[in-house]
Amino acid sequence: MDTQAIISHIESKKQQYIDELFELLKIPSVSADPEHKDDVRKAAEFVKARMLEAGCDLAELVETKGHPIVYGEKMIDPALPTVVVYGHYDVQPADPIDLWETPPFDPEIRDGKIYARGSCDDKGQMYMHIKSLQAMNETGSLLCNVKFMVEGEEEVGSDNLETFVRENEAKLKGDVILISDTSILANEYPSITVGLRGLSYMEVEVTGPNRDLHSGVYGGAVANPINVLAGMIASLIDEKGRITIPGFYDKVAELSTEDRVALNSAPFDLAEYKADLGLNEVAGEEGFTTLEREGIRPTLDVNGIWGGYSGAGAKTVLPAKAHAKISMRLVPNQVSGEITELFTRHIKKIAPPTVSIKVTAHHGGEPTITKTDSIAYQAASHAFEEAWGKTPIPMRDGGSIPIVALFKEVLKTDVVLLGFGLNSDAIHSPNEHYGVFNFMKGIETITLFYKHFASLIK
Amino acid sequence: MDTQAIISHIESKKQQYIDELFELLKIPSVSADPEHKDDVRKAAEFVKARMLEAGCDLAELVETKGHPIVYGEKMIDPALPTVVVYGHYDVQPADPIDLWETPPFDPEIRDGKIYARGSCDDKGQMYMHIKSLQAMNETGSLLCNVKFMVEGEEEVGSDNLETFVRENEAKLKGDVILISDTSILANEYPSITVGLRGLSYMEVEVTGPNRDLHSGVYGGAVANPINVLAGMIASLIDEKGRITIPGFYDKVAELSTEDRVALNSAPFDLAEYKADLGLNEVAGEEGFTTLEREGIRPTLDVNGIWGGYSGAGAKTVLPAKAHAKISMRLVPNQVSGEITELFTRHIKKIAPPTVSIKVTAHHGGEPTITKTDSIAYQAASHAFEEAWGKTPIPMRDGGSIPIVALFKEVLKTDVVLLGFGLNSDAIHSPNEHYGVFNFMKGIETITLFYKHFASLIK
Repeated sequence: MDTQAIISHIESKKQQYIDELFELLKIPSVSADPEHKDDVRKAAEFVKARMLEAGCDLAELVETKGHPIVYGEKMIDPALPTVVVYGHYDVQPADPIDLWETPPFDPEIRDGKIYARGSCDDKGQMYMHIKSLQAMNETGSLLCNVKFMVEGEEEVGSDNLETFVRENEAKLKGDVILISDTSILANEYPSITVGLRGLSYMEVEVTGPNRDLHSGVYGGAVANPINVLAGMIASLIDEKGRITIPGFYDKVAELSTEDRVALNSAPFDLAEYKADLGLNEVAGEEGFTTLEREGIRPTLDVNGIWGGYSGAGAKTVLPAKAHAKISMRLVPNQVSGEITELFTRHIKKIAPPTVSIKVTAHHGGEPTITKTDSIAYQAASHAFEEAWGKTPIPMRDGGSIPIVALFKEVLKTDVVLLGFGLNSDAIHSPNEHYGVFNFMKGIETITLFYKHFASLIK
Repeated sequence: MDTQAIISHIESKKQQYIDELFELLKIPSVSADPEHKDDVRKAAEFVKARMLEAGCDLAELVETKGHPIVYGEKMIDPALPTVVVYGHYDVQPADPIDLWETPPFDPEIRDGKIYARGSCDDKGQMYMHIKSLQAMNETGSLLCNVKFMVEGEEEVGSDNLETFVRENEAKLKGDVILISDTSILANEYPSITVGLRGLSYMEVEVTGPNRDLHSGVYGGAVANPINVLAGMIASLIDEKGRITIPGFYDKVAELSTEDRVALNSAPFDLAEYKADLGLNEVAGEEGFTTLEREGIRPTLDVNGIWGGYSGAGAKTVLPAKAHAKISMRLVPNQVSGEITELFTRHIKKIAPPTVSIKVTAHHGGEPTITKTDSIAYQAASHAFEEAWGKTPIPMRDGGSIPIVALFKEVLKTDVVLLGFGLNSDAIHSPNEHYGVFNFMKGIETITLFYKHFASLIK
C-alpha cells in the first residue's frame, strides 16, 4: 500500500464523499417511529447502492421482522485476512425539533462541522468504511477481504440482528470486527474505546384510580400515581449516589488502583466539562471521579417521565396513570438479563398496595472490554499513530453498543471500536454534528488499519 | 308563589331546557387553550342571549384582559331582596380525548345522564339559574331581584374576576350569592356544601445540563433533572402522609371531636368507594378517615409531570429539563398566598446545587366556610326539604371555588353553595356527565330558594 498515494486519493475525493453523506443524512431513517418505516428502507437501499459502487461483489438487503440489514462483501482472496465492518444506518428521533438551529434532516456545514441527525451516530461514521473500501479499491491497494453488516435497528435495540448473526455465523466469519460508533477524547488526544457499558432499559406504568379524578374532590384520599412513581424513583438511588436495587452491584468488577490511576490520567478538565454542559456541579456516586462515573460505574437514569396534565395553565387532575422510562448502564461483569430481572422484582416489591404496576423491558446489552495486547488493537493503535501522529489512549466509554458482546459470543472475533466522534457532537440531542476533519481523518485511519492489520496478522 | 304551578311549568319545559343546554355544551369553551379563544367568546354570547330571553332587563359582555364576564340583571323592585348568581361558562380541557366514549363536545343522553364536557361543571349547573329565572318570570312569581355574574376563566384561576368584583362592588350588591358548582352526597342524600378547600397551584421546572445528553456518555456523572425532580416530589410527603413543607400546617384549623363525629356520620361506604374507583386501598394522611382527608385536611398532588422521551420504544436521553405541576388544597385557616410562598421557598431550598429551579405560581384561592344558622343557608335548606323531601346534610367539600372567599371579603355577602352534581359525575375527567334528574330538580330547588329566602329575610 502506497500510503501517500491513497491519502492523496482520499483527499481529492473530499467533496464527493461529503455530498454523498449529505444524501444519506437527508433520509429521516428514524427506526423508533413507525411513520418513518419507508425512510428507513430508503436509507438501506442507499447504503446497498453505495457498497456496490465502492466495489463490493455482493450487496443485499436482508429482511428481518423489523428493518432490513444491509450485507455486503468484497472477497479478494480467501487466504487473506477478513475485516468485518458493523455499523447502522438508522438514527435517533430528532425531537425536540424546535431546539435544532437548522432542520435535522437538512444537513449543513457550519464551522467545519456537518450538522444533521445521524451525522456522527452513525451514518457519518459508518459511511467512512464504505469510502475507505472504495479508495483502496480504486487505488488497487486493498489487502484484506471486507464484509459489511449495516443494520437499521441499533437505536431501538438491534432486536433482529441477533437472529441474523446466529443464523449466519459462517458467512460472517472474519479476523476482526471494526465498529465506528464511539468517540475519541479530543482531536488533540485520539483514543480507542476499550470498554463499553451494557444496558437494561425498562418502562414502568403506575395505575391508581380507574379514571382521571378531580384533585379537589379526591385529592388526599386516593393515592396519586405520579406522587407514587416519584417516590419509587427517588428510592432507587441513595444519598451516596448508589443504586438501591438489592444485588445490583454484586457482579460489578472493581478496578485495581493501578487501572483507576491509568484511567484518570486521561486529559480531562472538570471546569471545562461543567462549562460545556452549563453545570454548577457534577453529580454521581460518592468516591468516584467523573471519568470513572462515566466509564466504569453502573448508573440508573430516568430517560422519560409523563403523567397527568402538561399543557398550558392549570388542570386540577389526579391522573389514573403515570409512566417512566428508566435505563441502567452496566459494567463488567453485570449481566443485562439479570439486572432486568432484579429491577423488575424490586420495583414490584417497593410499589405500595394503593397502586398497580406494569414493568416492561425494552432492549438490553452486555458490557464489554477489548484487550489492548491483541493484534487487532495494536493495528488500530498503529493506524492512529500514522494518521494522527499520536498514540491513542485506551479509554472506557459510558455508552452501550449491545451487539459488541453478541459478536464476541457468537462470532468469537475481536472487536475494535474505531470511533472518531467527539463527546461534544451532541449525538441523541438537537444539533448533532460531526467534524469534517474527523470524517476525513477517519477514512484515512480506517484505511491505514487495513495496512497494519494485514501486516501484523501474518 | 304558587309552588305547584311553577313546578308544573318547569316540568313542561324540560325538553326545551335540555335542547338549549345541548347548544351551550356543543361550544368547546376551553379557557386554558388559546386555540379555543373564539369558542369561549361564543359561549359568552350564548349565555348573554339566554339571559335576555329569560327576562333580564340588561345583559352584557364585560371585557377583561382575558375572557369576558357575562353580567345580567332583572331588577323588579329595589325594596325587594336581591339574589346574586355566580357561575362559569368555561370548561376544563377535554384530554385525554381518546378515553371519552362519545365526543366531549357532542352531548348525548345515556342512562338519564347528559354526557359532555361542562355538563355538570359548570354549564349545566349555571344554566339552571337562567331557566329558574325564566320560569319565575313566565309565571309571574319572581319575588327577588336577580343579578348574574357568569365568568369564563374559572378553570384557569378567575384571574380577572377579582378586578371586576372590586370595581363593581356597588353594582354587585345583594343579599345572598348563589353558586351551583358543587355536589350533593347522593340523590338519596341531598346536601349543601358548607366548607370548601382553598388552592395553591404551582409549576416547577428543573434544569440540569444545558442540552439533552446521551445517557450512556454522561449518565452517572451529571445530575438527571427527572431523577432530581422525583426526589424532590417524594420528599414533600412523609411516610405518614403529612406534607413536609415547614409551616404548612401552622394555620390548619383542627376540628373538634364533635365536628369530626358529625362529618363522619354522613352516609359513606368505603367498599363502594374503592370499587367505584377501582382501588385496592385508599391512601392519605394517617389518623383521618377518607371523608376527613377529602374535606378538612390539606393535600399536595402532582397534577402533571413531564420530561425526556415519552414516545414509543427507547431513547437513551438524559434530558436537560423536567417539569411538574403541583397543587395543594388548603383548609381553614390556611392562606393561599402564604402557602405559595412557603412552597416556593421550600422547593428552592431542597433543590440540590447540581440543578437550577424555576417555580411559577398558577392560580390560588382561599378556603371558606358557610354558617348553617344564616338566613341564606336556612332558605336553601328549606328549598331542599320542599323539593327533595329531605333535610340536606351540611358537608365539607374537597374542591375549591377560589372566588367564594373573594366575594365574602369584597361584597360582604353570604354565599350559599347550592350544587346538584354528584361526585361520580367525572368532572375534569373523560365522560363528564350530569343527571337529567339533577338538572331539573336543581331548577326546582333554586326556584324554591327564592320563595323561602324572600319569606325569611322579611
